[in-house]
Amino acid sequence: VIRTVAIYGVGLIGGSFALAVREAGFERTILGVSSPATIETAVRLGVIDEGAGFEEAAARADLIYLSQPIGEIVRALERIDEFVRPGTLITDAGSTKSKIVGTARRYVRRGLFLGGHPMAGKETTGVAEAEAGLFRNRPYVLTPIEDQDLSRENVLQLTDWIGAIGARQVVLQPDEHDRLVAYVSHLPQLISTALGSLLGEAEGAEAIAGPAAIEMTRLAMSPYRIWHDILSTNTTQIEAVLEQFICKLQDLRGNLLGEEISDEFAKAAAAAQSLRSDRAPKSFP
Amino acid sequence: VIRTVAIYGVGLIGGSFALAVREAGFERTILGVSSPATIETAVRLGVIDEGAGFEEAAARADLIYLSQPIGEIVRALERIDEFVRPGTLITDAGSTKSKIVGTARRYVRRGLFLGGHPMAGKETTGVAEAEAGLFRNRPYVLTPIEDQDLSRENVLQLTDWIGAIGARQVVLQPDEHDRLVAYVSHLPQLISTALGSLLGEAEGAEAIAGPAAIEMTRLAMSPYRIWHDILSTNTTQIEAVLEQFICKLQDLRGNLLGEEISDEFAKAAAAAQSLRSDRAPKSFP
Repeated sequence: VIRTVAIYGVGLIGGSFALAVREAGFERTILGVSSPATIETAVRLGVIDEGAGFEEAAARADLIYLSQPIGEIVRALERIDEFVRPGTLITDAGSTKSKIVGTARRYVRRGLFLGGHPMAGKETTGVAEAEAGLFRNRPYVLTPIEDQDLSRENVLQLTDWIGAIGARQVVLQPDEHDRLVAYVSHLPQLISTALGSLLGEAEGAEAIAGPAAIEMTRLAMSPYRIWHDILSTNTTQIEAVLEQFICKLQDLRGNLLGEEISDEFAKAAAAAQSLRSDRAPKSFP
Repeated sequence: VIRTVAIYGVGLIGGSFALAVREAGFERTILGVSSPATIETAVRLGVIDEGAGFEEAAARADLIYLSQPIGEIVRALERIDEFVRPGTLITDAGSTKSKIVGTARRYVRRGLFLGGHPMAGKETTGVAEAEAGLFRNRPYVLTPIEDQDLSRENVLQLTDWIGAIGARQVVLQPDEHDRLVAYVSHLPQLISTALGSLLGEAEGAEAIAGPAAIEMTRLAMSPYRIWHDILSTNTTQIEAVLEQFICKLQDLRGNLLGEEISDEFAKAAAAAQSLRSDRAPKSFP
């Protein structure tokens, strides 16, 4: 039974997870491992109960939730195992999975590691932005090392929580996860960054920018410090998907007046509709 | 003094303009020129007072507002002049301006033509989607044929209305308008279409799509019938801007692990922030 949860990295995602499980009925202790300033804010906002050190939190927790940037998750996995009680469930919220799961395979022996990735977020960061509803109607990917891990008692409690906080559980292999997030997350980010950068260079453009330009550059406000780790742990997949996208654009560019572009619009509209069909909320954050 | 307004093409934009000027205090007659089904809906929703034929509306109106697709605006400009009273103000809401203003220069003699482009819209169309607030905090571009046109009495009334409906007036040459909308509107659309199309091909991607993919494909739901005319009346500018964007992406792709990408993120974030600074609403439609 999960009695104590320890959130490592009490930011937007970790803080939202704490608020969400609280709202879903978890009444026991939630510890936070973060900088003193973040802990103070998180306690004041009622996101966590108390702060704890890296080792103390590991020793006390039944569920360890690693929601730092990827590089820090990797470093935590390299040293956390000796402090946890046997069987302690360790999960994470990192945006790429191959590197993290590979690290856990190597270093986690006493604990049980289950990779996770809630497909939720905002362009803002920090615990003050955390909200219990962040995961609602969003996919929550799990990347178990062994399939039978999913039937362990503490994992079943975690997957119950994933349902209770309104998320939609999806089980994938780490490399398949990384291939797919390159399409649905890393490509959209880089497109938004490239567009923001180009609009910044186009003199006069800002004065007439309407909803299209504003919406398409929201992701561009994401801080690079998060993206550095994503780009460096999923480089090959991102390069491949960028290449496919560049080809699409070159095709469009060469056929602006052709018949085929009508099919591209129809195909794209159908895919866009499909992303929104019943499982996604009708309005945007 | 503008006593009678005639909206040609009572869709999202034309209908929203009618609702907006009504809300801003205009109490006289608003005519609509559209299909019988659209007129019926528009009258029922209180968007217009009555339907009228092409010639009758032109003869009765003090302000003619052409808000059809670009091709229809061009065809209307080729034949409307003989029906209008001398000095009648004719404006439009077409998304490209060079072709439209060029046509007006050639065919409009009795009326006074002033090109316009409200930078507002949604991925949906039709009068049922019209709303009085659509132009609020959005740029409204005007492309006068002669600078002194802006000091004509009926033009001053129109520009008063543009302020009263909450829009931000921007005056541009038609070709400069077309160059800039290629950046802020046509490029975002084609990016969204290309992304939607690619996601439609990437098996398994849909199951894990989160807010980034959903938001970045909203524009992809715009119907091609509107975009056909835009692409064919601004082809050269769109090709040039697409080429610049493709170069940006190729640079990013070649430097995913380089130092420079940090600068691109910072530049893009600054531009994105700037698009939102005070003049734009904080949340998205």
